Amino acid sequence: MGLVNSRGVAYKPAKDVDLSPTSSEFYLTANVKAPRMVGIVVKIFAWVLEMRILGKLLLYVLKANNLIYKLIGNAEIEESPVFVPSHPVEEKENEEVKYIGVALSETEQVQEAVSCLPSWSDREVDSLNPSFHRWTIMDYSRAYRSRKITPLTVAERFIAAVSESSKPPLNMSFFINYNVEDILKQAAESTNRYEHGQPLSVLDGVPIAVKDEIDCLPYPTTGGTSWLHKLRPCTSDASCIQYLRLCGALIVGKTNMHELGIGTSGINPYHGSTRNPYNTSRICGGSSSGSAAVVAAGLCPAALGVDGGGSVRIPASLCGVVGLKPTFGRVPHSGVLPLNWTVGMVGILAGTIEDAFIVYAAISSKIPSHQNAVQPKLCFPLLNSSRPIPSVTMAKYGEWFNDCSDDIRICCSNALDKLQKHHGWKTVEVTIPEIEVMRLAHYSTIASECSTSLSSYLEKLDSSQLGWDARVALAVYGSFGSKEYIKAQKIRNRQMYFHRKILAHADVIVSPTTGVTAYPILNDALKTGELDYINGAALVRYSIAGNFLGLPAVTVPIGYDKTGLPIGLQFIGKPWCEATLIHIAYAMQALCVADYKKPEVFYDLMTQK
Amino acid sequence: MGLVNSRGVAYKPAKDVDLSPTSSEFYLTANVKAPRMVGIVVKIFAWVLEMRILGKLLLYVLKANNLIYKLIGNAEIEESPVFVPSHPVEEKENEEVKYIGVALSETEQVQEAVSCLPSWSDREVDSLNPSFHRWTIMDYSRAYRSRKITPLTVAERFIAAVSESSKPPLNMSFFINYNVEDILKQAAESTNRYEHGQPLSVLDGVPIAVKDEIDCLPYPTTGGTSWLHKLRPCTSDASCIQYLRLCGALIVGKTNMHELGIGTSGINPYHGSTRNPYNTSRICGGSSSGSAAVVAAGLCPAALGVDGGGSVRIPASLCGVVGLKPTFGRVPHSGVLPLNWTVGMVGILAGTIEDAFIVYAAISSKIPSHQNAVQPKLCFPLLNSSRPIPSVTMAKYGEWFNDCSDDIRICCSNALDKLQKHHGWKTVEVTIPEIEVMRLAHYSTIASECSTSLSSYLEKLDSSQLGWDARVALAVYGSFGSKEYIKAQKIRNRQMYFHRKILAHADVIVSPTTGVTAYPILNDALKTGELDYINGAALVRYSIAGNFLGLPAVTVPIGYDKTGLPIGLQFIGKPWCEATLIHIAYAMQALCVADYKKPEVFYDLMTQK
Repeated sequence: MGLVNSRGVAYKPAKDVDLSPTSSEFYLTANVKAPRMVGIVVKIFAWVLEMRILGKLLLYVLKANNLIYKLIGNAEIEESPVFVPSHPVEEKENEEVKYIGVALSETEQVQEAVSCLPSWSDREVDSLNPSFHRWTIMDYSRAYRSRKITPLTVAERFIAAVSESSKPPLNMSFFINYNVEDILKQAAESTNRYEHGQPLSVLDGVPIAVKDEIDCLPYPTTGGTSWLHKLRPCTSDASCIQYLRLCGALIVGKTNMHELGIGTSGINPYHGSTRNPYNTSRICGGSSSGSAAVVAAGLCPAALGVDGGGSVRIPASLCGVVGLKPTFGRVPHSGVLPLNWTVGMVGILAGTIEDAFIVYAAISSKIPSHQNAVQPKLCFPLLNSSRPIPSVTMAKYGEWFNDCSDDIRICCSNALDKLQKHHGWKTVEVTIPEIEVMRLAHYSTIASECSTSLSSYLEKLDSSQLGWDARVALAVYGSFGSKEYIKAQKIRNRQMYFHRKILAHADVIVSPTTGVTAYPILNDALKTGELDYINGAALVRYSIAGNFLGLPAVTVPIGYDKTGLPIGLQFIGKPWCEATLIHIAYAMQALCVADYKKPEVFYDLMTQK
Repeated sequence: MGLVNSRGVAYKPAKDVDLSPTSSEFYLTANVKAPRMVGIVVKIFAWVLEMRILGKLLLYVLKANNLIYKLIGNAEIEESPVFVPSHPVEEKENEEVKYIGVALSETEQVQEAVSCLPSWSDREVDSLNPSFHRWTIMDYSRAYRSRKITPLTVAERFIAAVSESSKPPLNMSFFINYNVEDILKQAAESTNRYEHGQPLSVLDGVPIAVKDEIDCLPYPTTGGTSWLHKLRPCTSDASCIQYLRLCGALIVGKTNMHELGIGTSGINPYHGSTRNPYNTSRICGGSSSGSAAVVAAGLCPAALGVDGGGSVRIPASLCGVVGLKPTFGRVPHSGVLPLNWTVGMVGILAGTIEDAFIVYAAISSKIPSHQNAVQPKLCFPLLNSSRPIPSVTMAKYGEWFNDCSDDIRICCSNALDKLQKHHGWKTVEVTIPEIEVMRLAHYSTIASECSTSLSSYLEKLDSSQLGWDARVALAVYGSFGSKEYIKAQKIRNRQMYFHRKILAHADVIVSPTTGVTAYPILNDALKTGELDYINGAALVRYSIAGNFLGLPAVTVPIGYDKTGLPIGLQFIGKPWCEATLIHIAYAMQALCVADYKKPEVFYDLMTQK
């Protein structure tokens, strides 16, 4: 890391840092000094933070205790700042992938994705009888085409299921908004297309839910708040929603989320706390809580989320589904709440990696989504390749990998053993320096950007309309100086260098997705929200590189802890190499799928079993 | 601009802003509320600003008075932030330019540039007898080749001239450092190369001076301070210096500059105030004061500067020489003091546009200088083209153009008339909105970046080692929050959009280079430095787009005010279109060169006339 003097760290030049397993770089565990706070304690904390003088003092102490000054603000960092995590394009010919022309439409892209899937024998849908099976996009598509069922019937069953799950005793709080009339209208149109033999794509009539951070008519975009949509009306569909509609997808509503996406528990005092389908007394993780939960519960084969600090991968892992966050800039961001500009992007939650792939194909853009980006060719993995899965090298940083609960560590290690045994894939030990520094730099960045993006709305807002945990977060978020922001971008440059070096000798970096499984929703948290920085840090521990460095990442469900709560394994890929990432996730999934368990709360919209 | 409420401006979306001459957008003149301060007043001001509580209060009031909160910090801005002013590459075939292959060496690039110059009859150097003529790079090269003179003789004359000019009565303070031994050694080597008929390029043996912000052995890099080089030793040449050495250039020393480049007067309490060769009681402008002055005084045909807020163009204009600032990213930045990362870059000061072009050819990189940049082909203007100069459209924003002294306005308008008359070039009236907002956004940016870049040095520094004006500046520089920084980058995005739109219908934007000519150096400013924000704002008024938006820009001397002080005209070009810019500057220079005047202080190193 470098010399630590009384004020701050003097970092070694990035190029002089040893990334080998025997490096002298030490693993700094998260120095989170904050007890869990709920109820009146959160309220008092928020009040003090919002005070002019005392608040500033408290913030100073908090930031000092959490090493913000030492590791970031007062640090000496030789590297220039890099403000946007965009990566140079290195085109490599690869036999395992299919290049997708820029002239293809969204529906043609989906068709290309389908052509990459393993061929599927023409067995009937209801002849399937696995121990546990969520209906996939292809299941829906085949059932619609073969007239086993219509989108309208699915829509009606969906509405009934959501209605039931929203009420006691379940109180799942999956959705913030869903419009029965709009769903039925879309379903009727889709049904009509199938009747005329003219479905738009395999997504036609397939229910897809959308995180309430993405503009999608006819719904307001609340961002999980009780007020944002009043100040910022939603006037059109986000780009990714437009693409899904072109493919005929049945958009079924706006899923619940942590208020403003600024927490990872998914406990929302206004719209209810989304409950985990595997154990309704547990959180779903966040902030894309509802999107993970509806997929886990069988209500949709896929849903959209937004991932600014693990917000797709964390709930996916806690709910036992797949979460895919593409490379920064791959999916157009327009129409997504601008809560930050350099770390967040649209991601996909799905029951299977194949379904995540199909949705990815639908929403991936061929146009650079930010001004300076060079957009490489889009390419898809040939999952139906008859060739054996190529040899894969997975980089693993032992101390980091093991910084999680025992169950997670054992389960993830076993998964790596399976990959080794079945495919001969190699694990190489590396050192990823300054992981905790990266977490703080990412925090300074997302905090500064979020506080800036919301500033004009917050001015017009009575703070009593904000949740208590959001009030605390926003007080901290607004406290960063330009020096801390810019130094955080220097840390970004260092980390992009470290990860580039590590990924030069490995196909992916492998880690658990979270440090803990879904923890309990305590009743005292329901009204005030909850501040639990220790569990929060454990949830985001493995997510940051995907956001701060813009790298693609995917989480695959690989097993369950002793209490039956899902565990995910994360692969972090090379920039723009989503195809390889999907291929690797597909291999991992194939080795685990036989052991997948049915959640406590589950709806079978196809057969209603 | 948009609605102004009590807290801040709500800007209209950029795409809805009218850029036509009849736009309702108004020209906001700089609202600079600060008297000129020198001596004890500056000291007291600095002391108060450095106080913990009172300082913060005063800064708050200062920033409020200068509209920082209203126009930036509390503004509502729809656009995303853009952190680096890099532009997409639009390759256009153009008959007027020559494309330069990426495989060429620096010396080959210089050779290509020379081949683009008008052919020069083989008349003898000393047969020339213009009313006033600064020896050009080609003059030196021809004289060396024809053995009229040797680099060693030129070096000796140079040393004598600098020695004389440094002492009373002149006290020009051109250089911070020059090493007689090193200069003579280089000159002897160059002389030897000519003797063997093997000069490296036309730059071989040609004296080039370097702003003391650029690393260049054997000199320390002071950045105009008395202390920075002690904390940051110079250990190797900057990239641009390496390139010049490969071409054989005779590097003659490190020129004076405003302390840390944070002012535009060039009044430096430690290294003396560089005096204007046209009138030694006047400033040179800054921050590249010395580089402009040595070129004006005939000591070097060209010098390197660094331009972060007009710092090349302003002194060039005030000293009657050419100043060229290429597109952001065109010249490699490594080895330049990292005082900022997104606005500054190396520029060239030269007696003629041809010489600026030759040096530009030597130092222009074929490698993207920042990670995300797409580097377009380098191309050179065919100044020797027999075809007539193509029709050029110049965009002019009248209210801004006219916001300068009467002499400057008249002189610049006459220059445009000449271009119209001789070449039929068109001027089109446009509106450039929010120019004053852009100045403040640029200020917030360079202030935040400079304060961050220096933070680790300043911690180790006794503030008494800083000049008083630098202490005031640094107190203000360190006061920006991340919100102001990020909102400034949203303003950057708007302005990049506005300028892109305007330059879609024009080849260049034309303006005066400065709002005032060289103002007096008052004796009371010599020791404390001077705070003169009103003159400062007039000096930088036209510079900002070149830095904040990364656009290439050039200033050409076009005449003199009533007291004989030089006036410059500025052309701001399309991104990456330096070739067109140089061509236009060349045409302008040709129409003005007959009236060029000899400075009060002038050295003729070739003939010693």
